[in-house]
Amino acid sequence: MKTAIHRIDIPAIMEVNSNILENVGSYVERAGISRVIVLFGEGIRELFGEKIISSIKNKTALSLLETYDFDDITIEKLIPHAFSIPSKADAVVGVGGGKVLDTAKYIAFLNNLPFISIPTSTSNDGFSSSGCSLVINGKRTSVHAAMPFGIIVDLAVIKNAPVKFIYSGLGDIVSKISAVFDWYFEERNNAARVDDFAAMLAKKSVNSIVRMPYTNITEQFFLKEMVDSLTMSGIAMEIAGSSSPASGSEHLISHALDKILDKPQLHGIQVGIATYLMSLVQQHRFERVEKFLGDTGFFDHVATLGMKAEAFEKAIDIAPSIKPNRYTFIHVEANRNRAKELLRSNEILNKILT
Amino acid sequence: MKTAIHRIDIPAIMEVNSNILENVGSYVERAGISRVIVLFGEGIRELFGEKIISSIKNKTALSLLETYDFDDITIEKLIPHAFSIPSKADAVVGVGGGKVLDTAKYIAFLNNLPFISIPTSTSNDGFSSSGCSLVINGKRTSVHAAMPFGIIVDLAVIKNAPVKFIYSGLGDIVSKISAVFDWYFEERNNAARVDDFAAMLAKKSVNSIVRMPYTNITEQFFLKEMVDSLTMSGIAMEIAGSSSPASGSEHLISHALDKILDKPQLHGIQVGIATYLMSLVQQHRFERVEKFLGDTGFFDHVATLGMKAEAFEKAIDIAPSIKPNRYTFIHVEANRNRAKELLRSNEILNKILT
Amino acid sequence: MKTAIHRIDIPAIMEVNSNILENVGSYVERAGISRVIVLFGEGIRELFGEKIISSIKNKTALSLLETYDFDDITIEKLIPHAFSIPSKADAVVGVGGGKVLDTAKYIAFLNNLPFISIPTSTSNDGFSSSGCSLVINGKRTSVHAAMPFGIIVDLAVIKNAPVKFIYSGLGDIVSKISAVFDWYFEERNNAARVDDFAAMLAKKSVNSIVRMPYTNITEQFFLKEMVDSLTMSGIAMEIAGSSSPASGSEHLISHALDKILDKPQLHGIQVGIATYLMSLVQQHRFERVEKFLGDTGFFDHVATLGMKAEAFEKAIDIAPSIKPNRYTFIHVEANRNRAKELLRSNEILNKILT
Amino acid sequence: MKTAIHRIDIPAIMEVNSNILENVGSYVERAGISRVIVLFGEGIRELFGEKIISSIKNKTALSLLETYDFDDITIEKLIPHAFSIPSKADAVVGVGGGKVLDTAKYIAFLNNLPFISIPTSTSNDGFSSSGCSLVINGKRTSVHAAMPFGIIVDLAVIKNAPVKFIYSGLGDIVSKISAVFDWYFEERNNAARVDDFAAMLAKKSVNSIVRMPYTNITEQFFLKEMVDSLTMSGIAMEIAGSSSPASGSEHLISHALDKILDKPQLHGIQVGIATYLMSLVQQHRFERVEKFLGDTGFFDHVATLGMKAEAFEKAIDIAPSIKPNRYTFIHVEANRNRAKELLRSNEILNKILT
Repeated sequence: MKTAIHRIDIPAIMEVNSNILENVGSYVERAGISRVIVLFGEGIRELFGEKIISSIKNKTALSLLETYDFDDITIEKLIPHAFSIPSKADAVVGVGGGKVLDTAKYIAFLNNLPFISIPTSTSNDGFSSSGCSLVINGKRTSVHAAMPFGIIVDLAVIKNAPVKFIYSGLGDIVSKISAVFDWYFEERNNAARVDDFAAMLAKKSVNSIVRMPYTNITEQFFLKEMVDSLTMSGIAMEIAGSSSPASGSEHLISHALDKILDKPQLHGIQVGIATYLMSLVQQHRFERVEKFLGDTGFFDHVATLGMKAEAFEKAIDIAPSIKPNRYTFIHVEANRNRAKELLRSNEILNKILT
Repeated sequence: MKTAIHRIDIPAIMEVNSNILENVGSYVERAGISRVIVLFGEGIRELFGEKIISSIKNKTALSLLETYDFDDITIEKLIPHAFSIPSKADAVVGVGGGKVLDTAKYIAFLNNLPFISIPTSTSNDGFSSSGCSLVINGKRTSVHAAMPFGIIVDLAVIKNAPVKFIYSGLGDIVSKISAVFDWYFEERNNAARVDDFAAMLAKKSVNSIVRMPYTNITEQFFLKEMVDSLTMSGIAMEIAGSSSPASGSEHLISHALDKILDKPQLHGIQVGIATYLMSLVQQHRFERVEKFLGDTGFFDHVATLGMKAEAFEKAIDIAPSIKPNRYTFIHVEANRNRAKELLRSNEILNKILT
Repeated sequence: MKTAIHRIDIPAIMEVNSNILENVGSYVERAGISRVIVLFGEGIRELFGEKIISSIKNKTALSLLETYDFDDITIEKLIPHAFSIPSKADAVVGVGGGKVLDTAKYIAFLNNLPFISIPTSTSNDGFSSSGCSLVINGKRTSVHAAMPFGIIVDLAVIKNAPVKFIYSGLGDIVSKISAVFDWYFEERNNAARVDDFAAMLAKKSVNSIVRMPYTNITEQFFLKEMVDSLTMSGIAMEIAGSSSPASGSEHLISHALDKILDKPQLHGIQVGIATYLMSLVQQHRFERVEKFLGDTGFFDHVATLGMKAEAFEKAIDIAPSIKPNRYTFIHVEANRNRAKELLRSNEILNKILT
Repeated sequence: MKTAIHRIDIPAIMEVNSNILENVGSYVERAGISRVIVLFGEGIRELFGEKIISSIKNKTALSLLETYDFDDITIEKLIPHAFSIPSKADAVVGVGGGKVLDTAKYIAFLNNLPFISIPTSTSNDGFSSSGCSLVINGKRTSVHAAMPFGIIVDLAVIKNAPVKFIYSGLGDIVSKISAVFDWYFEERNNAARVDDFAAMLAKKSVNSIVRMPYTNITEQFFLKEMVDSLTMSGIAMEIAGSSSPASGSEHLISHALDKILDKPQLHGIQVGIATYLMSLVQQHRFERVEKFLGDTGFFDHVATLGMKAEAFEKAIDIAPSIKPNRYTFIHVEANRNRAKELLRSNEILNKILT
């Protein structure tokens, strides 16, 4: 048998700093790209379009073939769009929130082009991962695309986005604690094989930020750490060849909430709460989770949202069926019961959920 | 122009835990390897040979073709050995300190075989990187080999190694702070191009440990973080395609000391001191470096070694010539003068050097 | 600048022989695949379904999750199907002609699964290439997918397919002669950069068969050479990163015919005629083309089809607009005029077209 | 289990044409290389040095760091040389026969640099393969290096090399016939697993030339086919991950002759004779081999060399021990007896050996 070393794709462009939207053209040109199209999410062109477009037009070796205001993740709308872009394009740039990034990422994937990810809010690790969340056959579905070729994050933009996006990003990061623990649990139960290197990266991504001193979650240093952590989470999934290092029982609860609720909250908000809950069930680093979500103001923010404990109860019951092939803590009945009990008994959960 | 995503090699086996030497056979077999040779460093067979050998022999699908006590990094000795191993071998296992790991790594490289790295002390990131330090034409020389296919670290072994090896490991980790800063300095001076993803990993590797709470540097949790950080440092170099994310002016000073001194200290010990010095010159995160090296007892340990400030002075002058193609802080005369001044004026340096 | 060696994907399974459908399960299992779905083209299940299904079911380590009779290349139909396959599937098998292979190939691509290509006729190189021909926005469109992971060709099946498929395959192979010549023409005119290794493979693929002695085009030895040649053509495109080594002006004429005609002929039939025409325009190896298409009976077969010279005339005019970014012989007006002239004056073309 | 598509390295530069030595600089520069060293084989600088050196110096973006007349394949001599080349070099160019190509290829490998192969005679497939033949521990040994990054063959040079090199090249090509047959024989006997795609390429490489019409073996068209075939043979080995598609019992006999004889003949000469012999033993395509070696004048050339049948007899007995892990036709005693019998009874062998 021929043993093969593990080979992965990582972004070729990675720029995370303040006030760098005006350098987008330079970064893209320097990477050998000549002709791009740009997709803006809703309302994004007004805010940042001018800056990005002129930074591209200023480059002599770079052409801007077309810009679009398009972020429709319904596959029936996305596909015709994907195959009507100029055939000369050699890269797809997406600017905005999760929807336009998924749209642009999938258009790039279908055309076998590099994708350049420019998130204007970083509420989850979608900007740095190979996955896409699309609406297929009427349902939100996770599908495979490709790793971003470039990631460009302007921290000044992130800082000025509504604070809920930052809390969502933090909720997504802290979830690596329960997710990795679930993964090892699956391995012990012969339901998965952990890739130790992916697990290590996922753990480092969360540890470097939860242990970090800061005075304010919108300070540049802290936001950079957050963006870097979300990026590492994306890479960890790439290495694992699955979402397991970044997504365990807490993500299943959030996916279940998406099904139950008419208006779900931001992904990372739901995930963050579920992480705290599951870390209590797992009896694993719950103090750390509690301290981080408390200190950053995450819990206080959640308390303003009017989320219902009842919805979580239902979500806990549905969660295992979201990914029947996995075997996380939430797949065990006793743990579901314990989780529902905690919804009633835990002081913090009582305070932030209604 | 065709733009290519960045593709890197990462270890397929990565196991870091206590009392796992007896599982070596399982890890290796599970990765699809059938016939191995094992190299032990000096004195290592007595300590761990029995455990490792029997763990391999216990596996029905795994054969142990040959074991050697051989860790000669002189290329004239290494080459004939490399080409006399059994032709049926499909992997090379190295067990011990830096020398045997470099020996085994190079033998694997020359035979195009996967290398499994089992460090018994982790005084630097050599156990997880693609580079080798060999003696060529009479001089210690860094040469290219390949990334380890497997990394297996028994934390119980690391814990029981002399504490100087742990301090050396910590010194090597903290050096990422000055090294990455040097790299960006080179970029600003058009002497290099930073790979942002590699730089990010290098920073995460050090940040996750320097911000970590611990009660004792030999506790398992802390040692695991150290080993993970050194591993990430190896990966960062692989991504960068050079040692720059992990090695800056502080490493040049250490290399210069190796030339000057009859009996140099451990690599990471020298590097750690030079990191503190250079962080002061760079005026970059020196408080963090000082606190970490102080709290862990690194400075106290150094104070027992009788190292001479004079040697550092000479090393500072020679350092730029070690890598004339680079342009770190130490390549600037004013910085060398400042560094020498600090050797005399800085209180801590005065205390730990004689 | 970091220079990168060229790295390409090639099929891991490649089996070309007579009466091997009953081994499909073995080939697939041996490659490490555990759970497959199978798509059959129209009428294919009746002919070969039993044999393939039982060969898969006979394997203990292999499960057949689902079979489909589905070969709809309209993207609106294909997409929902693609995302409704069992999530446990780890490979997609397609059995039949061009349509089902494109369907299965694209379903595999969208799900990031390996595709196993089992053509029952080999009328072009689609079974061995990364491209797909789908109907998008109402038009036949070439899109990117991925190289087949496996290619399994039962020569007994190919031999018993209607002879027009074999002629179409031969027409597609011989087109490499004009296609490669066009590619070098583009390079001389600074409109392309030839990948010499891809060009070499494309030439070898055609040369090995046009120089081969045979008594009958349906004899196994000859058919195997044809299948191997079409496979190499697929690989040549993969290496080039474009269809240029396999597709020049002769393909543009055929694509134009597809637009003009209500009922186009098989791709390779049209391409073969256009290759002869363009080889005369190029004054390049036309004797070889003429001899091969004459000896094999290709011309005689075409003469029975009632194709019209007039359609070719129109197609010649439209051809350059099919790929406006390229610069083949047909993109030059004088050559188009020469081609139309030849339609009237060349004896063979006069005989086979009406 | 995750199934992986097969990924291989192929040369990025491949130029085969007449009078192209003066373009070497352009080819190298165009591939993104900036600073080269050049190694010349014995007597090669006088013949082609001027042309190559000035073609490199003419390029503004390309520097010639150093040239050497060095082709010592003794590892003790090669190693110190390898590690004394300028550290700024980003590619190694080798010009000449087999020895200097092996030397330069290994120097490139040890320094992790791309290797550009410029053979001045093509007596075997070494110029296009990843292997090296070095003298290690006093014995000629095949070792692993890396695929050439570039292959540049000036056919005018090849044409003017002594004709024995052309015959040797042809002998090496024709050996794919017996080598591939041996490989399938091993598979039937569970001693190997054939990679069908590699086998197909190896077969195409020989078939395209043995079926080719030509008037003279030194005509450009024929020589180009020969060079392309040898290149494909190198690639086939790369795909297989072993030399099996290109080297079977006929190569073992030649290796055995190298051990026995004081002055062995050129590799391909010995291999060609052994191929004829083994094709008779295998009863596989021996008429084709006989016709090709007869028509090209190979047999007549061999007849002038005074080679002894007796040496072949001994070589046949030793052959299996050269690669005891393989199981080719020559590993079966009855076949060895049959081969020795043929040495005495076959008319052609009687005529060309003494």
